[in-house]
Amino acid sequence: MKILVINCGSSSLKYQVFDMDNESVLAKGLVERIGIDGSRLKHTKIGMDAVVTEAAIPDHKVAVDLVLKSLLDAKVGVLKSLDELGAVGHRVVHGGEEFASSVKITPAVMNALKRCAPLAPLHNPANIIGIEAITAALPSVPQVGVFDTAFHQTMPDYAFRYAVPERYYKEDHVRRYGFHGTSHRFVSARCAEILGRPIEELKIITCHLGNGSSLAAVAHGKVVDTSMGFTPLPGVVMGTRCGDVDPSVVTFIAQREGAEKTDTILNKESGLFGVSGVSADLRDVEEGMNKGDAKCALAYKMLTYSVKKYIGAYAAAMGGVDAIVFTAGIGENSATTRQMVTEGLEFLGVKMDYSKNNFRGEERVISAPDSKVKVIVIPTNEELVIARDTKKMAF
Amino acid sequence: MKILVINCGSSSLKYQVFDMDNESVLAKGLVERIGIDGSRLKHTKIGMDAVVTEAAIPDHKVAVDLVLKSLLDAKVGVLKSLDELGAVGHRVVHGGEEFASSVKITPAVMNALKRCAPLAPLHNPANIIGIEAITAALPSVPQVGVFDTAFHQTMPDYAFRYAVPERYYKEDHVRRYGFHGTSHRFVSARCAEILGRPIEELKIITCHLGNGSSLAAVAHGKVVDTSMGFTPLPGVVMGTRCGDVDPSVVTFIAQREGAEKTDTILNKESGLFGVSGVSADLRDVEEGMNKGDAKCALAYKMLTYSVKKYIGAYAAAMGGVDAIVFTAGIGENSATTRQMVTEGLEFLGVKMDYSKNNFRGEERVISAPDSKVKVIVIPTNEELVIARDTKKMAF
Repeated sequence: MKILVINCGSSSLKYQVFDMDNESVLAKGLVERIGIDGSRLKHTKIGMDAVVTEAAIPDHKVAVDLVLKSLLDAKVGVLKSLDELGAVGHRVVHGGEEFASSVKITPAVMNALKRCAPLAPLHNPANIIGIEAITAALPSVPQVGVFDTAFHQTMPDYAFRYAVPERYYKEDHVRRYGFHGTSHRFVSARCAEILGRPIEELKIITCHLGNGSSLAAVAHGKVVDTSMGFTPLPGVVMGTRCGDVDPSVVTFIAQREGAEKTDTILNKESGLFGVSGVSADLRDVEEGMNKGDAKCALAYKMLTYSVKKYIGAYAAAMGGVDAIVFTAGIGENSATTRQMVTEGLEFLGVKMDYSKNNFRGEERVISAPDSKVKVIVIPTNEELVIARDTKKMAF
Repeated sequence: MKILVINCGSSSLKYQVFDMDNESVLAKGLVERIGIDGSRLKHTKIGMDAVVTEAAIPDHKVAVDLVLKSLLDAKVGVLKSLDELGAVGHRVVHGGEEFASSVKITPAVMNALKRCAPLAPLHNPANIIGIEAITAALPSVPQVGVFDTAFHQTMPDYAFRYAVPERYYKEDHVRRYGFHGTSHRFVSARCAEILGRPIEELKIITCHLGNGSSLAAVAHGKVVDTSMGFTPLPGVVMGTRCGDVDPSVVTFIAQREGAEKTDTILNKESGLFGVSGVSADLRDVEEGMNKGDAKCALAYKMLTYSVKKYIGAYAAAMGGVDAIVFTAGIGENSATTRQMVTEGLEFLGVKMDYSKNNFRGEERVISAPDSKVKVIVIPTNEELVIARDTKKMAF
């Protein structure tokens, strides 16, 4: 069976087509600048060069039609007929407290998604538009929603509640939700496979470190805590997001700039970018650090120190840790980050072999063979999880 | 030598008189409701009953005169003449980056204190008024300022900076300062004495848990991190303060309520009070929990869980921990809190003996004799530290 996986942003649409008989990717692509001048589709049939099509793409409906046309193309397509598509899976950012697992899309589910939309005003409306565009183009194909928040719904109340007046939870749904759940789920499950032990026996800390970053404490297969919260802003230092700060710093800035501008400052002008003054990209910051730039060195240290503290906190939350997993752009590719984060964790039972750490983007155990706590790099694959869930839930 | 220790709030003045020959307290007291109807002085000569004097006390100058009069009183006084007072020590809340240790008060220091006042608008102005009132009453007696922030000034930049745009640090002095420094300093030093080891060899986590609470990571005698920040709002869950929350929760509330009201909500209506809906006092919340109140149980768990996570984080920050110290109202008196915080910390090398834990307000090691990490309850004594620093710095 072939499955199309869709990830809609407000002006973008990413997709992959899987052959689920062997879980291989047949094609993938990206529509950019939907509704903006200069919109285009970049489509790649696996094994061939990418093809870029520039075209007016006023909305997601047109984007979906263009994607389906590419999938049927005689040269770069991978389908003879749309009938070959068994199902479509969608990444949905926010499932609120409504969705603790992936779900087949129905009218009732669409209503629930719309109820969750205010919780993720930048993301969920685009996800909903993507589902509606597929429904219009492929009315008889079943669709499945896979939520960034779902894997974190197992958190206990004392971990997900904030110590603000209860009405903000009861009336406004203010609580820790967590994000990157699909990635945390994938790498924690893969970690158990690599260790050859049932996940039910393991305490795993998963470090999804990219432009956006979060950690999760996964005890016996269930998330007990995660570093993102009500939104993807808190936790460790990120590319442009501040991570954790004193709430009074927020009101200090808000008194001067207003709450909305403050949100922009903390989301778009902070993090590595705000401290280094150079870049939101850790590679640039590392280059600066290596050239002796003190602000870059500070930003880098702040990021790795914040990750290290969360690892300690989550070990305490779970009463210990069996494995630490690094994933996503930084986690998979930055040997320096992995080294700076893990240095000094010997007290947890971590024994590193840094001679194994100097590589990018592959699955590898980087702790020493006799390390009590295993440290593993696992490339994440959120699209594959979505495809698997879609196959399972669509019928 | 006799030393008077003063702790001025905006409408209160606490004091103690020490005989520094043997570090004993001769008298202590409290002036309440300064400038408010119903002002009064409660004075206690140690060994005698407290004496309450109701009087109009329009300002701190009058309060100081009343205190000095009580100290000279034939019956409840402890001085024959004010000449016996060798020096006066003041608790000052915020020393900014100007003061990394206690300091003799001079005109230059007063100017620096005034520069720091915007950082602690509720506290520093009162501290300044207290110093000026003593100067007016006892112009020839040397005075010393002891800062809540000073002990934390050893934090490295990657621990004290926030990942917000650099201008907020450079221009507005927004950074982590930390508070309760006098207490963290006292109990960490005492911990080293109890263990019979030089503090330079030790990694200590000090948990000052009271109505306001903070933890500090004290490595080799120096603070490397602490849970309060720019203000005393962040960190663990407190009586009415929220502790750490997603910065987006702050902007969410601020968009509705405005930044100033939000500050009040997070400082005065949150924490144990906001979650339990019952009380800001942990004793009431514990009573509620014991009677089966779910909100009280949640609030209690949130508080102890937040402390437990900081212990893990600070162990990671220091590369391990030798001792965990509990102090202040809750830390000294709540056996339940100490138990809930330490359960599950065996992975750190903590081995508790809970049979030793059921007591209030005394110095005691509560870990098992063979525990790698020692867990110790140490009653704090900020006034004694102020008196000692005053004796040392005044001349």
